[in-house]
Amino acid sequence: MTRTEKINELKQKYSNLTRNINEDFINIHPIQRGGILTAEAFKALIAYGDGYSLCDNCLKGRIDMIENPPVVDFLKDVAEFLNMDRVMLTSAARESKKIAMEALAKKTPGKKTVIVDSTAHYTTYLAIEVNNLKVREVPNSGAPEFKITPEDYEQTIKKVIKEEGKEPLLVVLTHVDYKYGNFNDPKPIGEICKKYHIPFLLNAAYSGGIFPIDGKDINADFISCSGHKSMAASGPIGLLSFRETYADAVMKASKITGDVTSKSFPNKICSVIGCPPVYGAPLATLMASFPSIVKRTQKKRVQEETDKINYFINKIKDIEGIQILGKLPKIHPLTSIKTEVFEKIAKTHPRRGFFLRDEFKERGIIGMAPGISKEMKISTYGLTWKQVKHFTQAFTEIIDKYKY
Amino acid sequence: MTRTEKINELKQKYSNLTRNINEDFINIHPIQRGGILTAEAFKALIAYGDGYSLCDNCLKGRIDMIENPPVVDFLKDVAEFLNMDRVMLTSAARESKKIAMEALAKKTPGKKTVIVDSTAHYTTYLAIEVNNLKVREVPNSGAPEFKITPEDYEQTIKKVIKEEGKEPLLVVLTHVDYKYGNFNDPKPIGEICKKYHIPFLLNAAYSGGIFPIDGKDINADFISCSGHKSMAASGPIGLLSFRETYADAVMKASKITGDVTSKSFPNKICSVIGCPPVYGAPLATLMASFPSIVKRTQKKRVQEETDKINYFINKIKDIEGIQILGKLPKIHPLTSIKTEVFEKIAKTHPRRGFFLRDEFKERGIIGMAPGISKEMKISTYGLTWKQVKHFTQAFTEIIDKYKY
Repeated sequence: MTRTEKINELKQKYSNLTRNINEDFINIHPIQRGGILTAEAFKALIAYGDGYSLCDNCLKGRIDMIENPPVVDFLKDVAEFLNMDRVMLTSAARESKKIAMEALAKKTPGKKTVIVDSTAHYTTYLAIEVNNLKVREVPNSGAPEFKITPEDYEQTIKKVIKEEGKEPLLVVLTHVDYKYGNFNDPKPIGEICKKYHIPFLLNAAYSGGIFPIDGKDINADFISCSGHKSMAASGPIGLLSFRETYADAVMKASKITGDVTSKSFPNKICSVIGCPPVYGAPLATLMASFPSIVKRTQKKRVQEETDKINYFINKIKDIEGIQILGKLPKIHPLTSIKTEVFEKIAKTHPRRGFFLRDEFKERGIIGMAPGISKEMKISTYGLTWKQVKHFTQAFTEIIDKYKY
Repeated sequence: MTRTEKINELKQKYSNLTRNINEDFINIHPIQRGGILTAEAFKALIAYGDGYSLCDNCLKGRIDMIENPPVVDFLKDVAEFLNMDRVMLTSAARESKKIAMEALAKKTPGKKTVIVDSTAHYTTYLAIEVNNLKVREVPNSGAPEFKITPEDYEQTIKKVIKEEGKEPLLVVLTHVDYKYGNFNDPKPIGEICKKYHIPFLLNAAYSGGIFPIDGKDINADFISCSGHKSMAASGPIGLLSFRETYADAVMKASKITGDVTSKSFPNKICSVIGCPPVYGAPLATLMASFPSIVKRTQKKRVQEETDKINYFINKIKDIEGIQILGKLPKIHPLTSIKTEVFEKIAKTHPRRGFFLRDEFKERGIIGMAPGISKEMKISTYGLTWKQVKHFTQAFTEIIDKYKY
């Protein structure tokens, strides 16, 4: 193959990456709904698409210190929004968790145990693993609710203290879990942490940007958020908000010195290898969406999103072969549904488990895991009422079509 | 302030982030030129702007395993392009370096020293620092060339072996440095590494995507690249390419297990806390630009870019009060220039050092560090000949205007 032929082959493969999911379909993909860009974010995406576009006026070699566009202001506004002291930009909520754990582990090297709810996202576990820490899970009530109570937390804390002779390093609560969409009230757990003098991290990857959060009211030491998951930003971008007392540990300055040149980099941050890795589009879109985020986390809008998912749930929950997973009524618009009814159909359908995605797609709906029929994970966040009703109708229609 | 007033204030600040730098000006910003999006990347940016847009058809919970869009194919094509065995997606070249060092440090825990050229980027130093390793610099020739020779490398290696009684963990060469734009031929240094049995990492943040690189020919164990710096991708995205022998260490699988649930995540990678953090726009734009990247790293186009910077350099290098830093003739279009002539003007100018940016801006040119007049760092990469000539003329015009 000549070089020109090779380049043409590559062009065929990569130069026309189109995607019309959100134009042509109702997208109920559970991890996508909260990240869909606002109109303002779209404009910022185009304006700041180039990798280093936010660095036009960087004077200090740190993106979090740029004043034009107003990044410094923005970080203060986000801290105020979450009612926390400080906010640092990260590549994702998982990096936020990793950095918080790293900072704590260095502060108190004798402590190794991190207590997490047993519905925590896998990245919470990996953040523990990469910091060489130890996980202890708070049990849940099992199917169908998978509920976790403050009492479960207190018991696990007591057990760890008894067995290990000291407090755990950190307690993590998943505000809204990735699978069942269970909403966990952080306040009582924050109070327990206060009582036992244990730092408290709220993982708000699925909630920061969807629900209001008052960090001081819930006694949080750290809150991790995800721009691309729940704040209508183009990824990857996360936030780590924290109390002032952790500032030096989280923002640990570089100390390395060149042995020949004596070069050093005291204004660079170790935890992110220099400058937060959020460059152009991720940060520009997060900033552009922020006013909408503040607006959509107000009571009325939050209630409306809750109403939408419960409308859908109430219409399907009593159907034979359907079981809603997670606590009811729903608070967050993400849910898992056990769909034995679809699983049965798949058994004899020529397209097997794929029939389900086909049927929804025919009705203008997309976002379910391809090939899976025994369980569905969806989110109605940000859909219009008309779309929610159409999705609900499609769901029951498909069941009726194959009634056995 | 009411909530509505607050939201309006935030809208004022954040909802209209515009940027017309590349539409209205000739942008000579040294870190931006290689990252400016291609037309194909722009289309992909818009199509894949949503955070999780690349995950529509994710079946395995890993972005590097997605077949539609063709990520799996793409990683193979990039490995072929660099003539390396494997390619992993990272958030940036610095993360690539960090991961390579981490993998090596775990493989050979007795070794701690990383040899780097003394013109290395600060992130090379920080990657060493966060891995708790030790830096040893290869000296350079000092001003004005800041040249580093293979002999300097060999001497430093010998010195380390003599002093520490063992080989260093890793040798790093900056292919093209961030400050002087010096191009370092990796081949002789790769040969020295082979002779002493030391792993060799080429930091190609400023070169991968600008120059052709043949990893096996230069005996590289690792090559780190930057999508937003030199591959016309929206950031943040980097590449770590490596030899098969390092695959298990680089792609280290998670082993943590929940003590209550027994959950584990063996398909997730420790070094990136799960799945490479490149989601939608960064990866989509990198893929879309890739055919152009292959094209622009061909001999003829590379030579033309070299000709452009040397055209500029040759027109200004003999002016009194001007000194070109770095080796001449230039190979890479990035350079630093000592501009005593401008520094003198700034001393009595009412706008002080800012006069220089003002003067260039008036002539439709932007991208120099604001307020700095004693040194300029620029890149002509990807400018048209007409733009290069206009920039050159503007440069001499400004000197003539203030002739003292």
